[in-house]
Amino acid sequence: MKNTFGNSISVTLFGESHGSHIGAVIDGIAPGIEIDMDYIHNKIDQRRPQGKISTARVEADEPNFVSGVFEGKTTGTPLCIIMENSNTKSKDYSKTKDLMRPGHADFTAIEKYHGFADYRGGGHFSGRLTAPIVAAGAIMAKALENKGIFIGTHIKRCQNISDRPFGDLKSDIKKLNTPAFPTLDDRAGAEIVKIIETAAAEKDSVGGILETAVTGIPSGVGEPWFDSIESVLAHGLFAVPAVKGVEFGAGFAFADVRGSQANDSFYMDGDTVKTKTNNNGGINGGITNGMPIVFSTVIKPTASIFRPQDTVDIAKMENAVLELKGRHDPAIFHRARVVIDSITAICLCDMLCQRFGTDWLADKEG
Amino acid sequence: MKNTFGNSISVTLFGESHGSHIGAVIDGIAPGIEIDMDYIHNKIDQRRPQGKISTARVEADEPNFVSGVFEGKTTGTPLCIIMENSNTKSKDYSKTKDLMRPGHADFTAIEKYHGFADYRGGGHFSGRLTAPIVAAGAIMAKALENKGIFIGTHIKRCQNISDRPFGDLKSDIKKLNTPAFPTLDDRAGAEIVKIIETAAAEKDSVGGILETAVTGIPSGVGEPWFDSIESVLAHGLFAVPAVKGVEFGAGFAFADVRGSQANDSFYMDGDTVKTKTNNNGGINGGITNGMPIVFSTVIKPTASIFRPQDTVDIAKMENAVLELKGRHDPAIFHRARVVIDSITAICLCDMLCQRFGTDWLADKEG
Amino acid sequence: MKNTFGNSISVTLFGESHGSHIGAVIDGIAPGIEIDMDYIHNKIDQRRPQGKISTARVEADEPNFVSGVFEGKTTGTPLCIIMENSNTKSKDYSKTKDLMRPGHADFTAIEKYHGFADYRGGGHFSGRLTAPIVAAGAIMAKALENKGIFIGTHIKRCQNISDRPFGDLKSDIKKLNTPAFPTLDDRAGAEIVKIIETAAAEKDSVGGILETAVTGIPSGVGEPWFDSIESVLAHGLFAVPAVKGVEFGAGFAFADVRGSQANDSFYMDGDTVKTKTNNNGGINGGITNGMPIVFSTVIKPTASIFRPQDTVDIAKMENAVLELKGRHDPAIFHRARVVIDSITAICLCDMLCQRFGTDWLADKEG
Amino acid sequence: MKNTFGNSISVTLFGESHGSHIGAVIDGIAPGIEIDMDYIHNKIDQRRPQGKISTARVEADEPNFVSGVFEGKTTGTPLCIIMENSNTKSKDYSKTKDLMRPGHADFTAIEKYHGFADYRGGGHFSGRLTAPIVAAGAIMAKALENKGIFIGTHIKRCQNISDRPFGDLKSDIKKLNTPAFPTLDDRAGAEIVKIIETAAAEKDSVGGILETAVTGIPSGVGEPWFDSIESVLAHGLFAVPAVKGVEFGAGFAFADVRGSQANDSFYMDGDTVKTKTNNNGGINGGITNGMPIVFSTVIKPTASIFRPQDTVDIAKMENAVLELKGRHDPAIFHRARVVIDSITAICLCDMLCQRFGTDWLADKEG
Repeated sequence: MKNTFGNSISVTLFGESHGSHIGAVIDGIAPGIEIDMDYIHNKIDQRRPQGKISTARVEADEPNFVSGVFEGKTTGTPLCIIMENSNTKSKDYSKTKDLMRPGHADFTAIEKYHGFADYRGGGHFSGRLTAPIVAAGAIMAKALENKGIFIGTHIKRCQNISDRPFGDLKSDIKKLNTPAFPTLDDRAGAEIVKIIETAAAEKDSVGGILETAVTGIPSGVGEPWFDSIESVLAHGLFAVPAVKGVEFGAGFAFADVRGSQANDSFYMDGDTVKTKTNNNGGINGGITNGMPIVFSTVIKPTASIFRPQDTVDIAKMENAVLELKGRHDPAIFHRARVVIDSITAICLCDMLCQRFGTDWLADKEG
Repeated sequence: MKNTFGNSISVTLFGESHGSHIGAVIDGIAPGIEIDMDYIHNKIDQRRPQGKISTARVEADEPNFVSGVFEGKTTGTPLCIIMENSNTKSKDYSKTKDLMRPGHADFTAIEKYHGFADYRGGGHFSGRLTAPIVAAGAIMAKALENKGIFIGTHIKRCQNISDRPFGDLKSDIKKLNTPAFPTLDDRAGAEIVKIIETAAAEKDSVGGILETAVTGIPSGVGEPWFDSIESVLAHGLFAVPAVKGVEFGAGFAFADVRGSQANDSFYMDGDTVKTKTNNNGGINGGITNGMPIVFSTVIKPTASIFRPQDTVDIAKMENAVLELKGRHDPAIFHRARVVIDSITAICLCDMLCQRFGTDWLADKEG
Repeated sequence: MKNTFGNSISVTLFGESHGSHIGAVIDGIAPGIEIDMDYIHNKIDQRRPQGKISTARVEADEPNFVSGVFEGKTTGTPLCIIMENSNTKSKDYSKTKDLMRPGHADFTAIEKYHGFADYRGGGHFSGRLTAPIVAAGAIMAKALENKGIFIGTHIKRCQNISDRPFGDLKSDIKKLNTPAFPTLDDRAGAEIVKIIETAAAEKDSVGGILETAVTGIPSGVGEPWFDSIESVLAHGLFAVPAVKGVEFGAGFAFADVRGSQANDSFYMDGDTVKTKTNNNGGINGGITNGMPIVFSTVIKPTASIFRPQDTVDIAKMENAVLELKGRHDPAIFHRARVVIDSITAICLCDMLCQRFGTDWLADKEG
Repeated sequence: MKNTFGNSISVTLFGESHGSHIGAVIDGIAPGIEIDMDYIHNKIDQRRPQGKISTARVEADEPNFVSGVFEGKTTGTPLCIIMENSNTKSKDYSKTKDLMRPGHADFTAIEKYHGFADYRGGGHFSGRLTAPIVAAGAIMAKALENKGIFIGTHIKRCQNISDRPFGDLKSDIKKLNTPAFPTLDDRAGAEIVKIIETAAAEKDSVGGILETAVTGIPSGVGEPWFDSIESVLAHGLFAVPAVKGVEFGAGFAFADVRGSQANDSFYMDGDTVKTKTNNNGGINGGITNGMPIVFSTVIKPTASIFRPQDTVDIAKMENAVLELKGRHDPAIFHRARVVIDSITAICLCDMLCQRFGTDWLADKEG
């Protein structure tokens, strides 16, 4: 479905970095869900550029609900969010439009769209399109919270600095759900900020690994094969620009251990079946087991750097050197974390409604 | 779509480990594609248990094409493959059916299916269902080869033993496409076999990391957001039992480098645009750039081990100890690699036909 | 999705008239639904050829559930039904394979599949593939009956003979759910049988109009635009071979009346909102209003007739005359009615589960 | 997919009659297709209210392309069209919001959306949402014309007045593609206008039957079962408000004839296979045979009439009488015809691109 994601609930994305508007259509969401503007603004603020470790392009990102909302609540009909693009400096791009930016989609866009795509600011491939994803995700994340399901993402590692692991998930997720720099350990956060600043000072960029936890998810959600929870979440997560890896639970570290260490033993906690460890990240056979869902994503270093780079001039079909101007982030993983949260909320709402019906999401007694 | 995967070309999977048959329906494949039984058997042999590092359950796995094939070629109508389950020992399972095997889907299946699922041998969750995936993938991989697209997967690492990296892809992929143990360096292969044998001797199991390369894929294939090549491939790959992580190109190592190292510089190779490095694994902005697609998957240690394990008795709702009998693999990554190849072939055929039309796959002139 | 239909619950169809097997995969059906073989056989009998007004080819049509059923109930995993093709006389077809049968899909199959399709007996286009549809529909119709939803179809008209209109739906639907000739008025039925016999005697065939009623369907099911109940039902109904028209409620007669006659006035029947008339066939704005769903379908005369017909020889690319041999029905609408019922059951199960969740269908308290 | 339609190319609809905007997102359309504003305006004019036989609510309906268009051509990325709602008189509706309008979706919307939907002017169910369908369809219809495929719809019948049948399709379709009243015979048109005026004068409304023809469509397009051309077209057509019946070729009249009359004999016209008659409307076995596609749709009388009507007050749960004020059409079939054309263009583009690939639509040589 190309730019549409989800079955019971779907999100369709549209827009270009320098077009008049960007936006998203949410379809299939239950009627009667409150549109909590404070909640949505808090999420949008988590994605907002932050001082000198971010781009100078700052957009209002105010979501305008042109349909599907009536008297402050979802109607159940398609909900279209549009956001204006106001702070565009298209001239920055036209000068270098034939120089393919390494690590970006300039070249692949030309190959796919035969040169008809809007190249300004990365066009449809711009990270700006994550803003409507965040607005859409905020509506769904709030609805999930009403059902006791909470999502939070921290920076797990950047270069040689690691944040502390998740501990008490309830308080950790609460701490993460503010626009502050998203580490659990503030000192680790300060060091990662320094890494970003140093890279920026050296006209370079850095990447990082994010870790996400979801609590309160019921067991029995997901499908055995092609719509496993891992499949559907990964599908959504790899749609986020710069995500190049996704792992659940112990992930790639499973290559280092034996089955006797990897298996999560079950035990009874009162009437509830739990596992002693959570190496499988809350998922067995593609289906939730009731333990927290835990996964990591890697965000590659921002492709836009201010150093001269070897590339090609696609009009002249010859080698060239590119020196970027414009406004760019030296790192985006700290901003991307709320996009990861949003994609997670969208996926889970979809899979929960497939299982429990459309109206489940709005049902207060849940 | 639950157990159906793909748009232009789709695969629907069905069956249980101890039912009468397992199988798959391929829909949307072009008419006139040759069914090369030698090619298919070679693929099925790559998945077959191998001596003492594998389960003692050996199935014929002979694919029976009950529809969609006429006079040795695809007809263009739905192609149903069925395989008999003959060598089943269901008694092994009934004794312990209430003891939830750690790391398996026993518990989540009960939560999802309320106790109605066939529990014998893991039922629908059994790795046996990868046999029809391999048969389906073989038809598509052969069709891709006719178009100059080749896929190969080797064991990248198991515990502390790493295979050598991919070198000349043409010869490496050729070497991998036999039933031999899938490493590029035979000595590394022998050491990994030893690791598996040691684990087996100690009633335990091991996991590993697989690396896959695809050559000959045209540029411009994939979608910018939700159907990025990464999204669609990851969706399929995470459907494979025991896959817990997927990374493209440098993957999680992107957290260790700067943008100036991570970006793949473009250059002209005659009339062709290429990149000097391939850290992005042949994909920019979710779309192929013409360089080889490269990705890694991690396969967790087989969940079935012969050591006593803590678990719960789901009927009595109390803690219990499980001692597995039966026939199990101490490692499955070496068998899983052809499943990864198959999923890759299925995904790519689907995305290529979306782009170029249904008949493209059968078109000899390519 | 080509040969797959449905979202929450889907049916994938496969097979050819003269292949080894035909079948269907049901995916997404709730676990714990009883497989009532008497009920299924009754439905299969409704589709069975009937004496001299039907083809002489009689198949056992015994559904073999190769997956998704365990201990007599659905497991919740994909349910594959296969049926053997035993009574095939392929020689009948090979002689005339280049002569395109008028009204059949021979020519369009060649255009679509470039000559690779199995031509014997119409191949994948054969009405035989409605047998697994009926088996799949029977499972769903039974589950709907457990929820108080009943479906029945009668012959509304053939040539100048009309059956009496639906009266008391409960008893009318009960009367129709047997293998007897499906009219409400037995005398009308006898006259229609005569029409068929006369046509058969004159080496010709006839068509007819079927009318279907569904009682007990809750209000509020369906979507406002592209997945209106009418859209989804019509999508399924037009998949049935020989269906060339579908109308809901008054249908094409809406061109003869004014709004004041066409509108169905609402009134309170105790606490329930009902309509005085049901010209809209139980559907307003694409969504059920709680009144019975009523629609008609037209089944064209069987294309296979024994008279000489003008056509082309597709190999020689020249005009030719075709004289059919073999075994053919002089009418199929009386057999098609259970296929219409089955498609209706499949559609409604899908839309109800989308609304109320997967498990709703199995929920006894419902 | 609820409010999204199509596979290769999809259209997602959003908006409410009295919200700020209505619109649609087209996804999957090839890059490089010219946005011909004159062509689009002509189509929009065909849907525009016409003097005294139409509502007094006249909207600019100017399509604003907020994404997916660059320098006058499609980019290949999602194309979002928005249109402003300016001429809204919401007060007309709030007075009678609890009185369920017979024949409308007021009641079913409450049942589905539990009272949260925007009731003003029919909300999401309003015929106003056909305006973005027409804009979307115009882009596709123009692209089809560039490939030699033409679509036209006339009024076949209203009450006892029938238009003349289609004759020379090329000139007939040309005649229909203007904002003039859509009959082939101007005198029949004048009489139908009189029927509408008389109904309007008597505070009533009328319906009618539309007939559509498509020329130039290649043979071999469509799928054998669930995605037959009839299935996909009917799915789209029944999404249009007030459509209650769809028939292909001879349609319901197939019940009146025998197979020997119904079958379309093939013959050679030079190198091309044609049929002598076209009772099957250009479709055999769900697949195009190269003859013109011909189908009819019935549009019921406008539900909004100015006579007092019996209904219920849904708040008080008691019987009531409704007297509508506001602005309403006494007939909509003459305006609906361009919506039918648009849905047809959308469906055919989708099915053609599935077959021939995404880029086919933009390919000039085609």
